[in-house]
Amino acid sequence: MSKANAGNFFEDFRTGQMIRHATPRTVTVGDVALYNALFGARFAVQSSDAFARTIGYPRAPVDDLLVFHVVFGKTVPDISLNAIANLGYANCRFLAPVYPGDTINAVSEVIGLKENSSRKTGIVFVRSSGFKQDGSKALEYVRWVMVRKHDEKAPPPPDHVPRLPDTVTASTLGDACPPIDIAAYDFTLAGSPHRFGDYAAGDRIDHVDGVTVEEAEHQMATRLYQNTARIHFNQFAAAQDRFGRRLIYGGHVISLARALSFNGLANAFHVAAINGGRHVSPLFAGLTVFAWSQVLAKAELPGRSDVGALRLRTVATKDRPCPDFPLKSEGGDDPAVLLDLDYWALIPR
Amino acid sequence: MSKANAGNFFEDFRTGQMIRHATPRTVTVGDVALYNALFGARFAVQSSDAFARTIGYPRAPVDDLLVFHVVFGKTVPDISLNAIANLGYANCRFLAPVYPGDTINAVSEVIGLKENSSRKTGIVFVRSSGFKQDGSKALEYVRWVMVRKHDEKAPPPPDHVPRLPDTVTASTLGDACPPIDIAAYDFTLAGSPHRFGDYAAGDRIDHVDGVTVEEAEHQMATRLYQNTARIHFNQFAAAQDRFGRRLIYGGHVISLARALSFNGLANAFHVAAINGGRHVSPLFAGLTVFAWSQVLAKAELPGRSDVGALRLRTVATKDRPCPDFPLKSEGGDDPAVLLDLDYWALIPR
Amino acid sequence: MSKANAGNFFEDFRTGQMIRHATPRTVTVGDVALYNALFGARFAVQSSDAFARTIGYPRAPVDDLLVFHVVFGKTVPDISLNAIANLGYANCRFLAPVYPGDTINAVSEVIGLKENSSRKTGIVFVRSSGFKQDGSKALEYVRWVMVRKHDEKAPPPPDHVPRLPDTVTASTLGDACPPIDIAAYDFTLAGSPHRFGDYAAGDRIDHVDGVTVEEAEHQMATRLYQNTARIHFNQFAAAQDRFGRRLIYGGHVISLARALSFNGLANAFHVAAINGGRHVSPLFAGLTVFAWSQVLAKAELPGRSDVGALRLRTVATKDRPCPDFPLKSEGGDDPAVLLDLDYWALIPR
Repeated sequence: MSKANAGNFFEDFRTGQMIRHATPRTVTVGDVALYNALFGARFAVQSSDAFARTIGYPRAPVDDLLVFHVVFGKTVPDISLNAIANLGYANCRFLAPVYPGDTINAVSEVIGLKENSSRKTGIVFVRSSGFKQDGSKALEYVRWVMVRKHDEKAPPPPDHVPRLPDTVTASTLGDACPPIDIAAYDFTLAGSPHRFGDYAAGDRIDHVDGVTVEEAEHQMATRLYQNTARIHFNQFAAAQDRFGRRLIYGGHVISLARALSFNGLANAFHVAAINGGRHVSPLFAGLTVFAWSQVLAKAELPGRSDVGALRLRTVATKDRPCPDFPLKSEGGDDPAVLLDLDYWALIPR
Repeated sequence: MSKANAGNFFEDFRTGQMIRHATPRTVTVGDVALYNALFGARFAVQSSDAFARTIGYPRAPVDDLLVFHVVFGKTVPDISLNAIANLGYANCRFLAPVYPGDTINAVSEVIGLKENSSRKTGIVFVRSSGFKQDGSKALEYVRWVMVRKHDEKAPPPPDHVPRLPDTVTASTLGDACPPIDIAAYDFTLAGSPHRFGDYAAGDRIDHVDGVTVEEAEHQMATRLYQNTARIHFNQFAAAQDRFGRRLIYGGHVISLARALSFNGLANAFHVAAINGGRHVSPLFAGLTVFAWSQVLAKAELPGRSDVGALRLRTVATKDRPCPDFPLKSEGGDDPAVLLDLDYWALIPR
Repeated sequence: MSKANAGNFFEDFRTGQMIRHATPRTVTVGDVALYNALFGARFAVQSSDAFARTIGYPRAPVDDLLVFHVVFGKTVPDISLNAIANLGYANCRFLAPVYPGDTINAVSEVIGLKENSSRKTGIVFVRSSGFKQDGSKALEYVRWVMVRKHDEKAPPPPDHVPRLPDTVTASTLGDACPPIDIAAYDFTLAGSPHRFGDYAAGDRIDHVDGVTVEEAEHQMATRLYQNTARIHFNQFAAAQDRFGRRLIYGGHVISLARALSFNGLANAFHVAAINGGRHVSPLFAGLTVFAWSQVLAKAELPGRSDVGALRLRTVATKDRPCPDFPLKSEGGDDPAVLLDLDYWALIPR
């Protein structure tokens, strides 16, 4: 039997199955530097130990999305090596801050399975969790992914489609954000005067800037997360696929959009939860990514007067500036749209 | 009103204005590793904690130019987001060593303004300073930059052109260099036997090697500094500009030339000041950068027998080796020249 | 006389000569992050401080090949700046673990010289050693390299061809691996259940995945090691050479193959020795690298019941998947083969 990992196929999964993933990963200031170099993040809390300490963190925490990508990367060899498409995310919550030096490992529970009518593929629902070395949970999220069957004649596991919330309840947000000393939060240093009260549901913000993605950049990012999905790295194989190109990891677009969103959301320093997200179309190297956001809702957090939550929709596009907030076109998605992400970010009150 | 930063236009500045810049940035060994990977720096003092400790530093200091780029990057959103051209630098002094873990923030004072005769643009002179978390000043420099007016009819601020020194006075150099134990300085490990006494004013050195620049490299470098100037990252927009290409950050050329200069100036380990510099022509990805240097002058430092100062002109070129020291051609600059930089470097005596 | 380093030519070497190399280099978590981003290494011991501590390391050690590349890089300016070809390696032993914060320097002894019949070149044999700041030896290896003569009429040094072992004796392996607590080694977290007893001499493993190399990636890697060999960085000069392209550092292929080999050899966490290696053909950017391995032999280590040694041949190819283990073709090497590497890796028993 081959010692190389062929990944799991649809018929290999069982609802209720727990999967402990390889490889544990210590996140360091080296990873943070690379993340900054690749995305140009500028949120002050994550950029500056001094700023973070002033407001109540022990030091600058690791960017939330870097933590997400590291956890996601670990799940790939077991969950999505034979995936055709990543269909969605739900109920993603950041539960504890991660600091340089922390070690992350990941566990997934299979929470649902549904064979497709073609009988060639099925949908696997997993709840993945990232843990720190002390056993505390840093992150959990649900994703569902379409996975190939190895043997089309294999009997499918019983159908079970989990009920998933449309949004993360605002009252559960904030576990990864310690109490913030807002009097010490320097809005000039942070890059914007705008706080919770300055945003209203319905506000739309063009993030203006565009950033062109190179093959070396997305490969380095995705390897940094130890994500082994083949389609991101192997041009020889990709040349024979329908796109003919290496497909860029969807999470790369999320991080680019988040970094661009600084320009208009500079104080929305912490992604507390992701309600859902859709990779509307694929991104390839050489294209330029733009983004805009809309405030979908606002919420106060029980017992916290320091920070409030903005529910944001951030939309990323390719080769398409966003002064007019592109999203839908006749008959469906605007063809320039890459990503439609719905999340909660915390911002000082 | 848009929450996205549109940057300042010429008519928004006032002489005497102080601008505190976002975002504070903790510089780490991760940043240092990326800087090394992007430029191939080999100066022993910055490369080795052990070497640095032996001669009197508490550990290896961060490369001077990395500090410069980080400070410069912070000034971009406020000073030069609407710039047409970076015209010059003067009186740049490195005042304190920066070590991994230090947090840098930046402040600029507007020290001069002059509208151009077209009335469409004006020149903004700023003195920018980089501070460490303890309030000590690590760096200051003057730059002047041509900035668009938003409204051509806006009344210009009063003209004021500051007097700027041609060179930094040698007697003021060395604050960022602790006393060096020259007996402990291992010239073999440092890569060259040549010290202060081995260089003479007028000496010219071809640095021999050439290095080709890739889009991913200059984008990663420039984002590492949190420099948001759009022309470096956005191929979609650049395609419609006069060059049709992303323009590489001028500071990238400075760092490439400095790294190349190791080959001939291996012991000139510390850039103490930059007298002036001119970006003679633009650099684009795919071109190969070469460099040569001339010793313009030498200076002893008051009260210091450990190090002396070499005033160096380092010239960088594109697709043009430098055995014959290209600089001028008939009627002006040699078209291969990218950079003409005038600075003081310290070297053991 | 030029202060730039022209490198040594064949006639400059003498058997018995000791060369201390510049530049000492402190290896940091920043370097480790870049190495991960460039190669996607996933061996648990090097990836996780927590995992490493559990089994007996004080923290995660630096990847063995990163140490090798750093030492190799230091030797380039003195040994191989005027090289035509890197001919081989022998007797490479890893002697002490390297941790982030350790400073590496390198020394080479010339152990043999042989002029070629053309009298234009000669072969230089060196034993290079990497030392840590405390004087302990982390690594040693022999390589031989064909070097140009500067003056074809220069009298050659006396011929001396050293006797080199075909393999490193298994009983000398393991100095860089502390005693491992195998009861605490979590095979699920490490990514595979397979241990020493599960491999047999003769086993062949296709590592399945392929990875496409970009110019920015190999340049960043090679500069990270402060390797100054010109052919890797200078497209302007390369355009006039026989390949017309920048040649990728052979060590880049070794690291890519090693990272790919995780898929099938996940617990072979430590490269203890390299018996020999051959760069069969050159690699250029844009090509996709695949790999397969064969178990050549197995060995127990005297006095150690924790780990055993697998002697592995790992073969890397370009644009050629390896389900049929390509190596030779009619009349010689398979033209797709890049690398044929013979080494000892340690794996839990």
